[in-house]
Amino acid sequence: MRVFGIDCGTEFTGYGVVEVDYEARMPRLQHVAAGTIRLNKKEKTPQRLAQVYAELTAGMALHEPDVVAIEEVFFSANAKSALKLGQVRGVAMLAAASLGLEVVEYAPLKIKSSVVGYGLAAKEQVQFMVTRLLELDEAPESADAADALAIAICHIHTSQTLLAQGALR
Amino acid sequence: MRVFGIDCGTEFTGYGVVEVDYEARMPRLQHVAAGTIRLNKKEKTPQRLAQVYAELTAGMALHEPDVVAIEEVFFSANAKSALKLGQVRGVAMLAAASLGLEVVEYAPLKIKSSVVGYGLAAKEQVQFMVTRLLELDEAPESADAADALAIAICHIHTSQTLLAQGALR
Repeated sequence: MRVFGIDCGTEFTGYGVVEVDYEARMPRLQHVAAGTIRLNKKEKTPQRLAQVYAELTAGMALHEPDVVAIEEVFFSANAKSALKLGQVRGVAMLAAASLGLEVVEYAPLKIKSSVVGYGLAAKEQVQFMVTRLLELDEAPESADAADALAIAICHIHTSQTLLAQGALR
Repeated sequence: MRVFGIDCGTEFTGYGVVEVDYEARMPRLQHVAAGTIRLNKKEKTPQRLAQVYAELTAGMALHEPDVVAIEEVFFSANAKSALKLGQVRGVAMLAAASLGLEVVEYAPLKIKSSVVGYGLAAKEQVQFMVTRLLELDEAPESADAADALAIAICHIHTSQTLLAQGALR
């Protein structure tokens, strides 16, 4: 299974692709790719959204994931930033839908506890654990890329638990 | 000038296309098209967003507007509904950007006062005035389609004022 994780943001959107081979005797997480889409602040919103869409669609087409995982959004933020984040999130989900890919969502607490072991972990702990779990030589290029990898890992861990429980094929 | 107005919503998204011929001796507003995109509640969000995107892109490609006009969003609503609305709005702006069309935004007060004459007009008054201004035989098919036509008319009225002031060619 290959998972394309996305950490949506109004300035930086991270993505990370993680694979696991369930056929292997010892299924291991494998880092496939990760990166950060940095939006050009000089551009207007429609052009910025077009950039996110183009880069995510290109990334998904290149890496051919089985599923796309994104973070559920909680609403401590105000409505204005929620609207802006929603615009990016809508485009990210559209990119997945346009390639016929299923989108799964995970709550931030679930993602952190799946990667670090507890839900209130700091950003640095997420980066550290993502680097370790994927056996990377150095930390991902940005906190957003690390978060996206964490979202992908969360989906793999959750699927493995479901597999173990016989809920999936 | 031909304007494609969009009234974004999480259940119904209205669109309306209005034209004005500045070369004419007496420039008149002309109704070109209007409709409502009704989202299938049984579908998941990415598929719903794909439907909005497909229908808006098809509408823009068919009617070849010069500009796309949408409503600015104000934040009386809570963050959760702002996020959902943002997702639809992001996809609408992406549809315009994908066809190389400029997007202009107008505040709700500005739209109502441009069509009805004052900013706190009721929905019914907007529908009534849109029907009159466009000399339609009957009211648009939905309040959302009427709002979308009102947004398009607002852009035309605003451009005419700017024209009169010499701010545009």
